[in-house]
Amino acid sequence: MHLLSHRHLEHGVGERAFAVGEIPGILWTPPTQPAPLILMGHPGGLGSMYPRLVARAVRAAADGFATAAIELPGGGERPRMAGAEHARADLRRALAAGEPVGAIVDRLVLPLVERAVPEWQTVLDALLALPDVSGPVGFSGGPIAIGIRLALVEPRIAAAGLFAGSFVPAVMLGEARRITIPLHVLLQWDDEGNDRQAALDLFDAFGSREKTLQANMGGHAGVPAFAGDDAARFFARHLTAGS
Amino acid sequence: MHLLSHRHLEHGVGERAFAVGEIPGILWTPPTQPAPLILMGHPGGLGSMYPRLVARAVRAAADGFATAAIELPGGGERPRMAGAEHARADLRRALAAGEPVGAIVDRLVLPLVERAVPEWQTVLDALLALPDVSGPVGFSGGPIAIGIRLALVEPRIAAAGLFAGSFVPAVMLGEARRITIPLHVLLQWDDEGNDRQAALDLFDAFGSREKTLQANMGGHAGVPAFAGDDAARFFARHLTAGS
Repeated sequence: MHLLSHRHLEHGVGERAFAVGEIPGILWTPPTQPAPLILMGHPGGLGSMYPRLVARAVRAAADGFATAAIELPGGGERPRMAGAEHARADLRRALAAGEPVGAIVDRLVLPLVERAVPEWQTVLDALLALPDVSGPVGFSGGPIAIGIRLALVEPRIAAAGLFAGSFVPAVMLGEARRITIPLHVLLQWDDEGNDRQAALDLFDAFGSREKTLQANMGGHAGVPAFAGDDAARFFARHLTAGS
Repeated sequence: MHLLSHRHLEHGVGERAFAVGEIPGILWTPPTQPAPLILMGHPGGLGSMYPRLVARAVRAAADGFATAAIELPGGGERPRMAGAEHARADLRRALAAGEPVGAIVDRLVLPLVERAVPEWQTVLDALLALPDVSGPVGFSGGPIAIGIRLALVEPRIAAAGLFAGSFVPAVMLGEARRITIPLHVLLQWDDEGNDRQAALDLFDAFGSREKTLQANMGGHAGVPAFAGDDAARFFARHLTAGS
């Protein structure tokens, strides 16, 4: 891990920009250390997502959590993924025309999952080697397909808060059935970019004995503040010592 | 209102058994007064439900809320409602046979709603006349059909936490659409006595701009403790001064 910068934000929150190989990322740490870690998923574009990520990080630090975000393959300044732009254009066209999108979603999302999940695992190795970061580890956010695969293959992930706000390849429903860690799934009821019934079917498929679906009103970006509070308490229940 | 008994429980919680006309009820009050009030709905049988109700009441009192429960028409020691036993037997038979239950639900639930809602309103008049109880008022629990009608016709109800655990007559979907107060709806995903799709359709129908569905694993009686915490925070957000 190469440390690119280190500064302090409000309330004693540390912020480190880093790179692990060609993967850029940001680590936020609370004053109390070592801290359990939440990996924050996002749709890609670490720069444009920064304001929302740092807000989530500062809030999580107040609860005693370290948080980390990395750039997705093809996101931000990273080299585009072959075929991704084409697949995204096909998806927009198919959605607008009301045509089935399954094959396009497979073509867009599966290669991203295949590359992003091992990258998260590599970064996780590096983060957990730091003296101020510890397990257990949570995953929070999206894309939900990455969260599903990571929850399934990475035993250090002890709980996941997933945002049902993007497409999941049909073949991954089988992976969802094999997940057993506690899940907290957020669904925006009127999300223009998300098929509500598909999200409900996915929630039903998850194999976890403890899983909660919280659906709120509004579109993709309209998650109410209290939903963030409830998700924070989910992680506090499952990642805090003695919980 | 006739006061039948008055005693103190743990943590300074007052418990009064009362009757308003032929309607028996229990009022719990916190040490801080006057307190906003939560009406606690339940399936009937104040005596057998007492352990669960008093647990909810003591918890709500810790959050600064007064709570009240009344016996449903036909419940506990009150005179049976004509036709209710018959309708309940028909419902069990139809469910076991996989037959449509709509007409039976109408026959079972509509008369109960017609009688129970004015009774809640009469009791509410009496409770709000007490010096240690104040508005705003919430409704919490079930039967959900009673909560829907009450939320629609009683302007003193400012927020409702509903338990999607019983049948709603189809004609009441139109009433659900006209509700505008904030709602927090609990759904047990594998509730053996509840049709999941009907519950999701009902949630979709509610006209409220702020409505949250929280679905958790397990059967009818398996609501996890954290779901109670989340519901409590919903009421704290909407019924506490300055919220």
